[in-house]
Parts: sequence; structure tokens; C-alpha cells
Amino acid sequence: MAMARTTALLLVAAALLAASSSAWEVNIQMPASAAVDDAVAPLIHALRPLLGSGKQAGVACDSWRLGVEAHNVRDWKTVPASCEDYVGHYMVGDHYRRDSKVVIDQAIAYVDSLKLAGNGKEVWVFDVDETTLSNLPYYAKHGFGATPFNSTSFRAYAREGSAPALPETKRLYNKLLSVGIKPVILTGRRENLRASTTTNLRSQGYSRWMKLLLKQQDFRGSSVTFKSGERQKLQNAGYIIVGNIGDQWSDILGAPEGARTFKLPDPMYYIG
Amino acid sequence: MAMARTTALLLVAAALLAASSSAWEVNIQMPASAAVDDAVAPLIHALRPLLGSGKQAGVACDSWRLGVEAHNVRDWKTVPASCEDYVGHYMVGDHYRRDSKVVIDQAIAYVDSLKLAGNGKEVWVFDVDETTLSNLPYYAKHGFGATPFNSTSFRAYAREGSAPALPETKRLYNKLLSVGIKPVILTGRRENLRASTTTNLRSQGYSRWMKLLLKQQDFRGSSVTFKSGERQKLQNAGYIIVGNIGDQWSDILGAPEGARTFKLPDPMYYIG
Repeated sequence: MAMARTTALLLVAAALLAASSSAWEVNIQMPASAAVDDAVAPLIHALRPLLGSGKQAGVACDSWRLGVEAHNVRDWKTVPASCEDYVGHYMVGDHYRRDSKVVIDQAIAYVDSLKLAGNGKEVWVFDVDETTLSNLPYYAKHGFGATPFNSTSFRAYAREGSAPALPETKRLYNKLLSVGIKPVILTGRRENLRASTTTNLRSQGYSRWMKLLLKQQDFRGSSVTFKSGERQKLQNAGYIIVGNIGDQWSDILGAPEGARTFKLPDPMYYIG
Repeated sequence: MAMARTTALLLVAAALLAASSSAWEVNIQMPASAAVDDAVAPLIHALRPLLGSGKQAGVACDSWRLGVEAHNVRDWKTVPASCEDYVGHYMVGDHYRRDSKVVIDQAIAYVDSLKLAGNGKEVWVFDVDETTLSNLPYYAKHGFGATPFNSTSFRAYAREGSAPALPETKRLYNKLLSVGIKPVILTGRRENLRASTTTNLRSQGYSRWMKLLLKQQDFRGSSVTFKSGERQKLQNAGYIIVGNIGDQWSDILGAPEGARTFKLPDPMYYIG
């Protein structure tokens, strides 16, 4: 009976661990059985932010993240301190990728549904940070957004031109090129980052964009003002903005928004 | 040694179960130890959609739900069949309530930040279904949105006037009354449901709304057209729409949207 119960509990524990690791694909492995006693405490600690809502000190981190993505939570300066672990796990594990994949799948289905004129005037607007390129290597060293943004250290990182591509976005980018929709890259980065941004995008396999639009050094205004203004210029020049994708609501709000907009996940920072 | 290992595994299993049940607050209890053997299979089955992403047949249900809330997934007719369990658990458990609470907390913080004129012209627009009232009793019997919408059976349910209030929304509603912002209830329900909707709202503790606006029986047009048109009339009559809340993007898109909008969760249906 004792043996049967041990086996049953092993099955429960293994099944629960299997369910959690397949969902998150984080490197948490069942320890060898001889080491179970020692391993229990750290194992439970490591799993806590993965299984639950990450609720600590009154903040339900998953609900906070949903609030950010649905544009209910606005004008926040930093990730709630108690959610740093939660956001870190989200970004580094499979969840961020999985959420991004749904967005890109929708975008590609939309592209497939279009009756294109194919006149070279159809464009798609892409943001840079957390859209074409990922700054996760930087944010992993800066609390995943839980510490205040430091523009000096971020610019130094951006100047390296070492940010990896976001693979899901690249899939959309290549799809658009294949059907003759021209990518326009529109970023809140300023002109003094043009060279390193160009190098970075090229080294990560982005090519053949129609324009790379950056902020003038002396532009003072909101992101919505800058980006909607640039989209208006595109439209005035006869281009049709068939799509627009970014990780910030300020990328996709403000007329002309583009015929359809897509919001990629970003629980690390907010740009108003 | 065998005993120590059994204890350790009991701890792992109990901790994992505790973590999951506190996060979801669903009535799943650790069975009495004598019944463990029999209970293993149903226990694991019951937990599967709670712990993971609910990914089945290629759909990551949590990512799909995020896509819906961030308005990336549009124009869908039914919840993906493989996500019925996931959505059911989401709606019936603590998760839906927790997500709604964050939205309402943000709305109340916004109200507290306002400098009100207090001239009786400040209004707040509320939707009805899945905003002031919950149709969960209906949808729980209709696959949580996984079966096609049946307007006949839904109207019969709505005519009963038995839908419960959404407690988080009611908290905002009462807050607004307390600061002198007048609620305007604006719903896609048609005029022939006016009496039962009024009775239902009153019986659930909603009172003192300024207007209850329903669709004319013969209105043919989109929800955005109807609702933005009604908001425009309010504005033309000199009212200031300081806020607007609904569970559908079509509740809060279309000028004039209101000075600030809030999107409550709803993974059960989409109204374009």
C-alpha cells in the first residue's frame, strides 16, 4: 500500500511537472530521485512564479500584464517590483514567443486575405525596439523593466548594434516582401542611431526596407505625434499603409493608423 | 528512506496543488490519502487546462485570449473548440475576476485623478452584456462561446432579467455616482429588451443612470456605428464623456470614444 501510494504520488508530481515544463519550456528538470529531499525547497521556489499569477504584495502580475496589453494600464514608469521575476520568466521562457506567434499568425492571415493592387504603393509600418529587434539582452541585465529606464546605458547598448531579431516579426517581414508590400521602419530612436540601427537590422537579416524613419535629434513631442505625423507624410506621398505593427500602443494609435494594426506583447516598458 | 521520499513527494505534490488552487481558486481539493490511487487520473485531467497554456490542436489558448484582449484577434465567430475548457476555467475560476479587478482599479485611479467640473454634464458610458451584467449563467450552458451564438435562446435568457451584476463594474458605477459623474448605459440590445434590461439592472443594484440607450428595432449597422453615433449625440447635447467602458473593442472604438476608455475581458464572444 505504501509503495502504491508512493507510485501514485510520483505520477501526480511528474505529471504536474511535465505539464508546467511543457507549457513554459523553462529548464526545470525533475531532480534524480536520490536528490529529491535536498531539491524540494529550491524546486518549489523556482516554480512559484511560473505556475501562479505571480501575485505578490497585492499585484496579480498576469492581470497587470493583460492590463498593459489591452491598454488599460497606461503611463507606468517601471514594472511593479514584485513582478520582476514574473516578467523575467515570461520574457525568457516560451510564453512571450507563444504570444507573439499568435499576433504574427493573425497578421499573416490578414495579408493573405488582401486583394493587393501590386502597384508598389502598398507599405507596412514596423517599429524597431521589441518589434523588429529584441532588447532582451539589455533588459535581462536591468531588471526586465523593474528598474527605472536609463537612456545613457540603453543608448550605449543600441550603439553596439547587437540586438537579435524577433523571429516571429521576421517571418511577417519576409512574407510582406514576398507579396510586394514594402516595409517602412519607423522608430522613436533618434537620427544619431541611424548607422548602428541600420547595421543591426542588416546583420539580423532584415533587408530591402523602403524607408528607415528616425526621430530628428531636436524633435520634442509625443511618440504618437511623431509616428502619426510620419504616417501622414507617407499617405500624402500616395502610399497605402496596409498594416502597422509595434509593441507600444503609441506605435499604432493616432490617425492615420494604417488599415489594420497589430500590438506585439511588451510587459517591460511603456512609451506614451 | 522510502518514508522520507514519500514525505518529500507529498510535499512537492501538496505545494504544487496549493500553488495552483490559490492562483485559480477552483474547487479542486487534495483527496483524502486513502483515495489517492483512484483520484489520480481525474485530478490530473482536471488540472491540465489550469496549469498550462491550454494548448491543444495547435491553439495556445492563453495566447489566443491575449490576442483577443489586445485586439489582434478579430472577427472570430466562436471560441476555438479546443479552448472551451480553458475559457470555462478562466470564466468560472478566479482569473476572470482578477483580470477585471485590475481594469476597474485603473478606472477608479483615473476617476480620482480627474479635476471635475461638477456641473452635471460629466457622464460615463457603460455597456451592458459582460460589462454591467454577466451572462455567464447562459454561456456556461452554451459551451462558453465555443458553440455558435443563438440569438433566439440568448434573447429568451435576456428576457428573464436574471443576469447577475459584475461586481467589479458595480464598484466603479457606485464610485462615479459618489463623485457626481452620471452613468449612461449604452447597449447593443434592442428596444424590445428595454423593460427586462431595466428590471435586471435595478434588481442587481444599479440605479440612478441618466440614460439607458438601446438599439432601435430596425437599426442596421455595425456596433461601432451605433455606439459612436449615440456618443456623438451625447456630446452634441453638451455632455462630456469622461470615461467609457465595455467588454468589446466595438464599445470603445469610433470617435468620440470618450476621454479615456477601458476594455474589460471577454474571451467568450466577439462583436464587430
